[in-house]
This record gives sequence, structure tokens and C-alpha cells, in this order.
Amino acid sequence: MTRETIPDLKDFRALALRLNEAASAETLPRFRNKTEVFNKAGIWFDPVTQADREAERAMRRMIRMVFPKHAILGEEFGEEPGDGHHEAGTVSDWRWVLDPIDGTRAFVCGVASWMTLIGLEYKGEPVMGLIEQPFTGESWLGVPGETIYRRNDEAIKCETSDVTSLDRARVTTTDPRAIDGYFDKSEAEVFSQLGRKSRLARFSLDAYAYALLALGELDVVLEAGLARYDYAALIPVVEGAGGVVTNWRGEPMGSDARGEILACATPQLHEETLALIADIREQQGAAT
Amino acid sequence: MTRETIPDLKDFRALALRLNEAASAETLPRFRNKTEVFNKAGIWFDPVTQADREAERAMRRMIRMVFPKHAILGEEFGEEPGDGHHEAGTVSDWRWVLDPIDGTRAFVCGVASWMTLIGLEYKGEPVMGLIEQPFTGESWLGVPGETIYRRNDEAIKCETSDVTSLDRARVTTTDPRAIDGYFDKSEAEVFSQLGRKSRLARFSLDAYAYALLALGELDVVLEAGLARYDYAALIPVVEGAGGVVTNWRGEPMGSDARGEILACATPQLHEETLALIADIREQQGAAT
Repeated sequence: MTRETIPDLKDFRALALRLNEAASAETLPRFRNKTEVFNKAGIWFDPVTQADREAERAMRRMIRMVFPKHAILGEEFGEEPGDGHHEAGTVSDWRWVLDPIDGTRAFVCGVASWMTLIGLEYKGEPVMGLIEQPFTGESWLGVPGETIYRRNDEAIKCETSDVTSLDRARVTTTDPRAIDGYFDKSEAEVFSQLGRKSRLARFSLDAYAYALLALGELDVVLEAGLARYDYAALIPVVEGAGGVVTNWRGEPMGSDARGEILACATPQLHEETLALIADIREQQGAAT
Repeated sequence: MTRETIPDLKDFRALALRLNEAASAETLPRFRNKTEVFNKAGIWFDPVTQADREAERAMRRMIRMVFPKHAILGEEFGEEPGDGHHEAGTVSDWRWVLDPIDGTRAFVCGVASWMTLIGLEYKGEPVMGLIEQPFTGESWLGVPGETIYRRNDEAIKCETSDVTSLDRARVTTTDPRAIDGYFDKSEAEVFSQLGRKSRLARFSLDAYAYALLALGELDVVLEAGLARYDYAALIPVVEGAGGVVTNWRGEPMGSDARGEILACATPQLHEETLALIADIREQQGAAT
């Protein structure tokens, strides 16, 4: 075994763009495709699952070819360690984190807010995120210090908004109700109070909410129930645009079991939101 | 005065397409335009109001030129009766109903679900609806018996889904909370129960929800607080695709003060939803 050098982020970026193309080829033809969707006695989750699986398979194949030693974590096929003999500090520290269709519910409702998420971690830290919405042709590429938005011939360096207080903030969560897979009852109450203190609230955006936060169009995203593949790619995108991402206690993501996530446009907004959450949690604690 | 003949719907369609272009020229450049939006100390409703106003002004000017006798109702400038001397049964029976930006909240959050709505009524009945989302380049044109979806070079005859029962239905409302301008408390409870009985619920789509219903991608839209200019253009779009639109008691829209609207993909789904609403209303009546 020769010792492999750690590849440049440029090589990863090139691969990520190819992964995205491969995923789109599987997902986009199945989007708003009633024929396929409705002819099977209404089992319209089927084609989505199929799109998910085919897209993830295609991406895994490409990663295997280019970086056989890298680990892969994906929504559909779980964790796959890198091939071959690893040496400490070399390529085995890299892991690709894939979610071929984030926002399955949006997908099956014809709403173009679902996204393909491709994240890359180095020693457990997300260092690159490429997220794409194939129907609108939009993509966001986040690396340390920079997030670039692309659509058609347009490329924009993303900057989060300059909103520093909740009373001016546009806040969002995918589903405000206490239902399986999203908020539990006490989390739903936290969002409810956040919504009342802010300028306006929007819903049902999934990963697209973080993409709009990076563009400066939304100010706070508060969610729960997220898995690693749901957010690994989002962290570099939000941070590269100047935003802040932590769990609901201000700690790095990954340190709590409920998958609670808070993304904010500015450090001030992040501080104010964390303080509000702590207050509500204290009241909830006192009430039980 | 010579007596004018009632123009063919084709002439209206041609005008509506030009109105849409005129509106887009005012709205789209202001969408996701942070420079304009954020430099005024965060008063980001301003540019939207301006986009709304300029778009409606442009549309009114064009209608005045082509059909000076037609009445106009718009969100920004209210009701404007037609010019000149009217004769019964002639052009004075026609009214254009305009909403340059439906979904202001979506607009200021960078979400491409806001739409320009152009409706045409004959003797109080909506007979044509043209609704457009300029960012995605999608439009829906509904006339009696037909709704056509267009994007790029693609034109599709719309058909609502064949979903006939709530347990398989995808339901939506713009905001499920009891807040000003949307549901009151008892209406929010109706939606909450509807959501629990259906397959899944999505939010925050505004007029785009009805457009997706026409495409067969959503099955039930239940809302309240809608004004005439919010829904006049939507009725021909949904009905032309085979859907059903009434108020929450199954009556034609316009007959209640709360602006409660129910749009369904199929008559069966409409029946089941009306029955559910009646049940909940009865329980609510008994409880007070």
C-alpha cells in the first residue's frame, strides 16, 4: 500500500457536481410524473423510494470509482466503510453523506423544494456541501469561507441577511405540528412561541429553507428530528454564507439524540433565539 | 354609442397573456433582490408593495386601452367601474380581477410560490383564470372545460388527481395556525382534524396550492380569509382541470363573509371533506 495524499477540495467539488448530475437523472424524470405515480393503485410513495434508491446507488458507484477508500453514509443504504487498508490521517478520514431526495413529502406533492444533498466530512466535520433543486435548476456549493449559488448562467456569492433581532426575523420550520418525525409536543411549543415573537413564519421548505437562509431570504430555521444525512451538507452552505448552525443548546450538531437544529442569519439572532429557547425550556421544566 | 358585441374569450386570453408579461416586468426584478430589500433599514415589505402597485397599474392601463368599458377589481386599487355608457348584457358585464402578487409572505422569503393572478368574470361568474409564477416560468390558463399548464416549450392539459378518499389525500393550507388573516380558532381546529385524517399535509403555498391541485399533485386545499381577488382566477383553473371549488358549506364562492374556500380533486373527496367539516362544526356548536 502506498500512502495516499489527502486530495484537494477541488477534486471533491468536481466529483460532487457529477454526483448531482447522476442523481438528477434519476429524480427529475419522476417528479410530477402522474403516470408512474398514480397508476399503481395510489401507492405514490413507491416511485419516490425508487428515485431515492436509484439516485443513491448511482452516487455511491461514482464515489467508489474515484475515492474507493472513502466512507459513505446515505439515507437509503446506511453506512459503508471505505475499501482497502486505511492509515490514520489519510483518506479514511473522509466520509460522503448523501440524501438523494430531502423532502419526500414536497416531492410527492409536486412542490419544487425537495433537494439532493451531498455532504463531505473530514474527521467528522462537514467541510463541503453541495445541494441542488433540479426542477428550478438551482444549486448551492458551500465550502469553508464561501457559498456559491448557481442558476443558469448566474453565480452569486451568498450572504445571509443582516437581521439581528427576532421581531424583524422571518422564521421557518418544515412542520409546526407535533407529529411523528418532526417536533414532539414541547418542541412544537418552542416553535409556536418563536413564531409569535418574529415577523412572519413560513413552513414546509425542508432543506430549501437553509438554502434560502444562505441567500439572505430567511433568517431563522428551527427544526427537530433531523438525521446526519439531513443536515451534514447544509452546515457548510449556511456557514459559508455567514450564518450559524448549532443544536438548540448552542452546541455543534451531532451532540443530541433528538436531531434538534437551529440555523440563524447572524450571531445576534442566534444568541437571542438560544436565550428564548432556554427560557421556554425552563418554563416547561417548571411546569412538569 | 354603438352597441359593442361581447368579445370572444380568445381576445381575453391574448390580453391576459400581455397583462402577465407586464406584471412580471415589475415583480420578478424585485424578487430576491436584497439590495433593494435590505438597504432601507429592513423595511422589506416596501419593495413588495411597490412591485404590487406598479404591476397592478400596468395591468389596469392595458385593460383600459383594450376594453375601456370593462370593470376592474384589484388588490391594490380596489374597484373601478368601466368607462362610458353601459348597456345591459353587453361588455359592462365583464370584470377583470387582479392580484399582482398573491403570496406576499412567500415573496419576501424568497420562496417561488407567489403568483400573479388574473381573473375574468362574466355577470359575476369567473370564466377565465390565468395564473403565473414568473421565477419558475410556469403558467396555468383555465377556461370552461380546460386548463392548460405551460413551462418552457411544454404545454400540458391539466387533470386533477383521481384520489377519492381523505385517507389517501394530500391536503394543504397556507397557514395552519389561528392568526390574523388566516384561520380563526374554530377554523384552525377544522384543518387540524382534516390533517390528521389525511395522508399528509403541506403548508405555505398560497395560490400555488390550487395550481398544483390542477396538476394532480395535491388533493385538497382548505383555507379561510380569502378575498375575491385571491380566488377569482383560481376557480376556472381548478374547475377546468376537473376539480371542485366551493365554500365550506358546498355553496359557490362569494356567499360567505369569512372567505372560507375548499378545493378538491374529485367530487367524492369534496363530499367526504364537506361531511367532515359539517361534523366538526356540529361538535363545535354543541361545545359552545
